[in-house]
Amino acid sequence: MKESEIIALFQNKKSKDNVIVGIGDDAAVLPGVSDGQYTLVTTDMLIEGTHFLRDQITAEELARKSLAVNLSDIAAMGGKPTYVFLSLAFPKDLSDGWIAQFASAFVNACEDYGVVVVGGDTNQSPNGIVISPTVHGTVSKENLKLRSGAKANDLICVTGNLGDSRAGFQCLQKNANLELGRRLAKKHFLVKPQLAAGLFLGQQKSVTSMMDISDGLVADLPKLLSLSNVSARIDLENIPVSNDLLEYCSQLKKNAFEFAAIGGEDYELLFTVHENNFQQLKKDYQNQIKADFFCVGKIQTLNFDRVSYYFKENPFVVTDKGFEHF
Amino acid sequence: MKESEIIALFQNKKSKDNVIVGIGDDAAVLPGVSDGQYTLVTTDMLIEGTHFLRDQITAEELARKSLAVNLSDIAAMGGKPTYVFLSLAFPKDLSDGWIAQFASAFVNACEDYGVVVVGGDTNQSPNGIVISPTVHGTVSKENLKLRSGAKANDLICVTGNLGDSRAGFQCLQKNANLELGRRLAKKHFLVKPQLAAGLFLGQQKSVTSMMDISDGLVADLPKLLSLSNVSARIDLENIPVSNDLLEYCSQLKKNAFEFAAIGGEDYELLFTVHENNFQQLKKDYQNQIKADFFCVGKIQTLNFDRVSYYFKENPFVVTDKGFEHF
Repeated sequence: MKESEIIALFQNKKSKDNVIVGIGDDAAVLPGVSDGQYTLVTTDMLIEGTHFLRDQITAEELARKSLAVNLSDIAAMGGKPTYVFLSLAFPKDLSDGWIAQFASAFVNACEDYGVVVVGGDTNQSPNGIVISPTVHGTVSKENLKLRSGAKANDLICVTGNLGDSRAGFQCLQKNANLELGRRLAKKHFLVKPQLAAGLFLGQQKSVTSMMDISDGLVADLPKLLSLSNVSARIDLENIPVSNDLLEYCSQLKKNAFEFAAIGGEDYELLFTVHENNFQQLKKDYQNQIKADFFCVGKIQTLNFDRVSYYFKENPFVVTDKGFEHF
Repeated sequence: MKESEIIALFQNKKSKDNVIVGIGDDAAVLPGVSDGQYTLVTTDMLIEGTHFLRDQITAEELARKSLAVNLSDIAAMGGKPTYVFLSLAFPKDLSDGWIAQFASAFVNACEDYGVVVVGGDTNQSPNGIVISPTVHGTVSKENLKLRSGAKANDLICVTGNLGDSRAGFQCLQKNANLELGRRLAKKHFLVKPQLAAGLFLGQQKSVTSMMDISDGLVADLPKLLSLSNVSARIDLENIPVSNDLLEYCSQLKKNAFEFAAIGGEDYELLFTVHENNFQQLKKDYQNQIKADFFCVGKIQTLNFDRVSYYFKENPFVVTDKGFEHF
């Protein structure tokens, strides 16, 4: 069964009328603690052997990453994270030192991002490590961004380089100990949730939809398009890529832009903006966030193809198999 | 490292002043959606090989149990459950039929208890099944019951039989296929969260503290006593036990009351009530809940022993080793 088929099985027949957004967006949207606000809730699990291998990631990196991937979902809604609940399962052979390092890094990361651990559960695991955080956030009602708001002619933008994390992951799998591999792998481990960008973009009326890129642009964009009931054109050569990725892909004789489009674990934000507001938004974003975002395509009215890929104005078929977990 | 030591590592140095109760009670208490209410959040993970064996529990039983153990925490605060977030990890060899049965039973259980699945995460597991629900609830501010309110001379009460689940678990481990074993094992699988009792007891001013018994009375009571800064006397012979447990323990030549006190996975409520209000509360409870509760001891001012156990008026040392997971 595919993930989407499993998720569909858990849709309650009757939904509560006070659920603003349930299953299907980056986070659930629930009534907030004041009239002007919503509460956001998201949960993303990391499992040893599926999402990481213990000998390839430090306790500190794992702690920060397990928080960051959840914060990324809050950022994608235009929100600010508040609380975290942390369910853990640790195997017997895990040392006290490892656990202490994990806990200390997790708490420090929480403090960096202004969130507080308010609950959780610790268990013994018969096999690998399991980390299951649930993160709460808050968002002003008018700043909430969903996957469902994209309109024809909106421009499709991303907040940063794609593909590095996937390349780093591949280097790890191949045990490529080159300097380049180590640099790319860092992007895989040191996930930086785009909280400032998400908060800023949430405040912009011209931004019509938003999500984070966790499974890669090619896998994630259709989710946004489907909820917005639109199609899209992507110009692959406009996808921002790092010099490291260009070097990596040139060594492998691969198209770096196709590689980046497949990506995975990028944790950049994907959003759409009214065509006419693009230039102004770019200026404001550069001023506020001290960074840039990049236009990679355009929303189209719904047509036969959910996404049409182009490379330098020529239709392009994405054939790359894509990111796979361990 | 012990569970309590691990939990202590996750206490943030700075806590947010809008967290009403953080780590340490049955659920976290956060600001609610209206001035008169709090939001409750709890998370309790079930892991194959630690909490259950796949060939000993059906998909339906596991689904209902994984929800029920979380609802029990909401009941223990005097609250009503509202939402659930469900993170799952399924191994490749799990059949689609199993997954469909699990999902359908989980959704049905949610509907039975008036909760709705509003989010989650599904993953592939390299080893066993992992089920990590996070349940939200709501409670009127004046009905919130904590572990910290017990006062000297309060009576200590439980809402139902203890020990059956542990006995059922032992029968499973020994593959005891007797009719008695099967009956007791049912208590282990079919956890009934005491939501009606919890809601009623939450509404009673005379109830000074409450928690659920998940690790057994002997392990759980000290947590309440510690937060209330008191000691307790337990009269073992007053612990309610089933006829099945009496029979099981007589076969094993064990003291059924000591066995029940150790217990584990009982999911009954443990609460304290002002001495003078006990009789009235019992009457009201019987009328409202159509069931009874049982006084098993008394709160004492803090002394050298956290808990003094008595059996028929004689001091008693609990030596039984207690519940152990697989």
